[in-house]
Amino acid sequence: MDTRINLPQSEMPTKWYNPLPDLPTPLAPPLDPVTQQPLTPDKLEPIFAKALIEQEMSPDRWIAIPEPVLDVYRLFRPTPLVRAKKLEEAIGTKCRIYYKNESVSPAGSHKPNTSIPQVYYNKREGVKRLATETGAGQWGTALSFACSQFDMACTVYMVRVSYEQKPYRKILINTYGGEIFASPSMQTETGRAMLAKDPDCKGSLGLAISEAVEDAATHADTNYTLGSVLNHVILHQTIVGLETEQQLKMIGEKPDYLIGCVGGGSNFGGLVAPFLPRKLAGENITFVAAEPKACPTLTRGSFRYDYGDMARLTPLMKMHTLGHAFMPAPIHAGGLRYHGDAPIVCNLMAEGLVDARAYYQKECFEAAQLFLKTEGFLPAPETSHAILSAIDVAKTAKPGSAIVFLYSGHGMLDLGSYDAYLRGDLTNFELPQEDIDSALSLCPNIGG
Amino acid sequence: MDTRINLPQSEMPTKWYNPLPDLPTPLAPPLDPVTQQPLTPDKLEPIFAKALIEQEMSPDRWIAIPEPVLDVYRLFRPTPLVRAKKLEEAIGTKCRIYYKNESVSPAGSHKPNTSIPQVYYNKREGVKRLATETGAGQWGTALSFACSQFDMACTVYMVRVSYEQKPYRKILINTYGGEIFASPSMQTETGRAMLAKDPDCKGSLGLAISEAVEDAATHADTNYTLGSVLNHVILHQTIVGLETEQQLKMIGEKPDYLIGCVGGGSNFGGLVAPFLPRKLAGENITFVAAEPKACPTLTRGSFRYDYGDMARLTPLMKMHTLGHAFMPAPIHAGGLRYHGDAPIVCNLMAEGLVDARAYYQKECFEAAQLFLKTEGFLPAPETSHAILSAIDVAKTAKPGSAIVFLYSGHGMLDLGSYDAYLRGDLTNFELPQEDIDSALSLCPNIGG
Repeated sequence: MDTRINLPQSEMPTKWYNPLPDLPTPLAPPLDPVTQQPLTPDKLEPIFAKALIEQEMSPDRWIAIPEPVLDVYRLFRPTPLVRAKKLEEAIGTKCRIYYKNESVSPAGSHKPNTSIPQVYYNKREGVKRLATETGAGQWGTALSFACSQFDMACTVYMVRVSYEQKPYRKILINTYGGEIFASPSMQTETGRAMLAKDPDCKGSLGLAISEAVEDAATHADTNYTLGSVLNHVILHQTIVGLETEQQLKMIGEKPDYLIGCVGGGSNFGGLVAPFLPRKLAGENITFVAAEPKACPTLTRGSFRYDYGDMARLTPLMKMHTLGHAFMPAPIHAGGLRYHGDAPIVCNLMAEGLVDARAYYQKECFEAAQLFLKTEGFLPAPETSHAILSAIDVAKTAKPGSAIVFLYSGHGMLDLGSYDAYLRGDLTNFELPQEDIDSALSLCPNIGG
Repeated sequence: MDTRINLPQSEMPTKWYNPLPDLPTPLAPPLDPVTQQPLTPDKLEPIFAKALIEQEMSPDRWIAIPEPVLDVYRLFRPTPLVRAKKLEEAIGTKCRIYYKNESVSPAGSHKPNTSIPQVYYNKREGVKRLATETGAGQWGTALSFACSQFDMACTVYMVRVSYEQKPYRKILINTYGGEIFASPSMQTETGRAMLAKDPDCKGSLGLAISEAVEDAATHADTNYTLGSVLNHVILHQTIVGLETEQQLKMIGEKPDYLIGCVGGGSNFGGLVAPFLPRKLAGENITFVAAEPKACPTLTRGSFRYDYGDMARLTPLMKMHTLGHAFMPAPIHAGGLRYHGDAPIVCNLMAEGLVDARAYYQKECFEAAQLFLKTEGFLPAPETSHAILSAIDVAKTAKPGSAIVFLYSGHGMLDLGSYDAYLRGDLTNFELPQEDIDSALSLCPNIGG
């Protein structure tokens, strides 16, 4: 049997799946950050494309993918589903392990699945420039790639610790035609205020979001885009799960475990959401979310309303949070350093539909090196969490189980972190409970 | 129609094609560097695996690929053939342009096609360590990847100018378990002698080959491997052309032009060789070799016997050469900075079967950026020569022509060179004729 399952391009999904109508309990509505009342769509219009706001709240189960978006998807989609036989042999499992390889996109990760439609819709509505934040740089790269496809200007605020660890990200974003600033930056009020307080501040996703939102809010021709967390982002990412479902069907395989790493939740959400109806109908599919112990949102966070960003500019969302003021340790999986999680993922978690597991970064790098040694490819540090989780699951799963994990990105631009790993310079961060308590004490107290 | 043509893994070629028996004139034999008499196979045994020496001189048209090699090939092969529609539209051509994407391998280039069998045969013959040189780093990465698959120690001598330009290469090779030295190094007599003469020497492929050959010759458990030039390397690379032929057949397409960049000639040779019988039978297929003006071996070199390395340790081979003492300018396409070319490619060139074209590096980076803007992917600087050549060919080709170029590698580890390009720091090197004349005057004078 082929170890790589290629879906013909002619069978690529032409609709995204929207899990909102299928959630067992309705999603708690986002709240206005000032009035704390349910948000009206018009409040989002200054910084988001109307089409995306509609998708954010859409009751429709299926949403057609516009042809110009499909056209760019076809540059790299469908992506292969791969049987990791050498990894299976190395760990001596009797399970079958598959990985859905999203690293084959131009930007090297799953992120273009949503950057492409986000740029498309903004372009269609006359927006001239998009501002965003990026952690490890995957989202910033994906947005600049999509902007180059649609001739859109692009400004990226990159969390400073990652900006310094990954110098090639800046060059790649520039080569795609985007501009990039280390966050906190001098470009925004929020950035300048933070630098005045702490000139050595290493930044966080929450802070970088504040900068990008402020940039968009203060420039009429500029909108904001987010690479994770929001419903429309997970909607776009469902193409990953939909393809995976077709590919598994091609080989007569039913998944027992679906695994993704979780930062904001978009790759995990995009993989598992299309399987939600089957799970709710009684199929025994376990959704496993892998997160870092240094930022254990799902495993140790509180399920409550919180802001999406440090400066409290975003709507309040009900999610598992470590508090919007939480500043995670500088682990190398920069894309997993977010204080909250996608409301859709948290909704599933709260319903007991997600098995969340937290890992130390050294273990993750060890799993990454085993993957490199067996399957040959170099994973992104974020992706290594999903790999370790797949190995972890295989240890206790029933022999014969089918384990599918999402290979969210390659690590070619993260080699600095592998250098640190090889030199023995990595720290395993364990978060003291009092840090969580103190950050959570700053959260608004809404609805108990 | 699908823009990506995937060959099912079950139809992956299981034999390599050996062009030696089909060459219109027999290949001039390699000569002993000391006696200048035809080389006997036993002279190669101290540094090469016996199976590879056999393949080097084999009269067999087809050679079976061993199952353990196929097994590693399956980690990434067959590679996709892709219709570059957006590139076609951007340049307004009426030709169809395809690229065979070898960048999808773990090492990010076509090089694993030969590193995998080379390591396999050496392992089978009891060799414990392999030494090699690398220019841009693609070959060193590919060898360290293959060594990690077969548990073999690996030592890489990397041309210093590239070692300094591409720091991530070192880390990646280390992560695969290989060791790496900037060449000239203090590890060998050759390296130490060069450093004594010129402590700032930036190195060359010819010099790095000398170091690796010396390392292998002076250690009983160590063999040498070469990533290009030799017949067995092109043999292994023919899997690229064989797959391409099957993929074109799948869509009912006949190639009018086959294009590859040429450094040592392995990716170009591997693409075109399987089409040689059809070309000799009268099919109108043009083989286009794209090389840098800074190292114009095929377009301005002399077709004669010369050494493969600077220290004159290797056999003499009849090839287009700029002289083994030639030190090319530090262009960013480090993999194309070789003074000679594969004897098989040169044989075809001398027979008038190859259309060789030379390009400046700035034009190549412009073509790379156009490819990035249209097809989305970041090419290696070497690969950009093939892209520019495809655009160049499309300008004058008959409308409706099918142009296939080899996308030999991605540029994720070459971002330093894109930074230089964006900053306007690239130089277009034009080689003065007296430099060529002076280097050629040091070549041995054999057979006129």
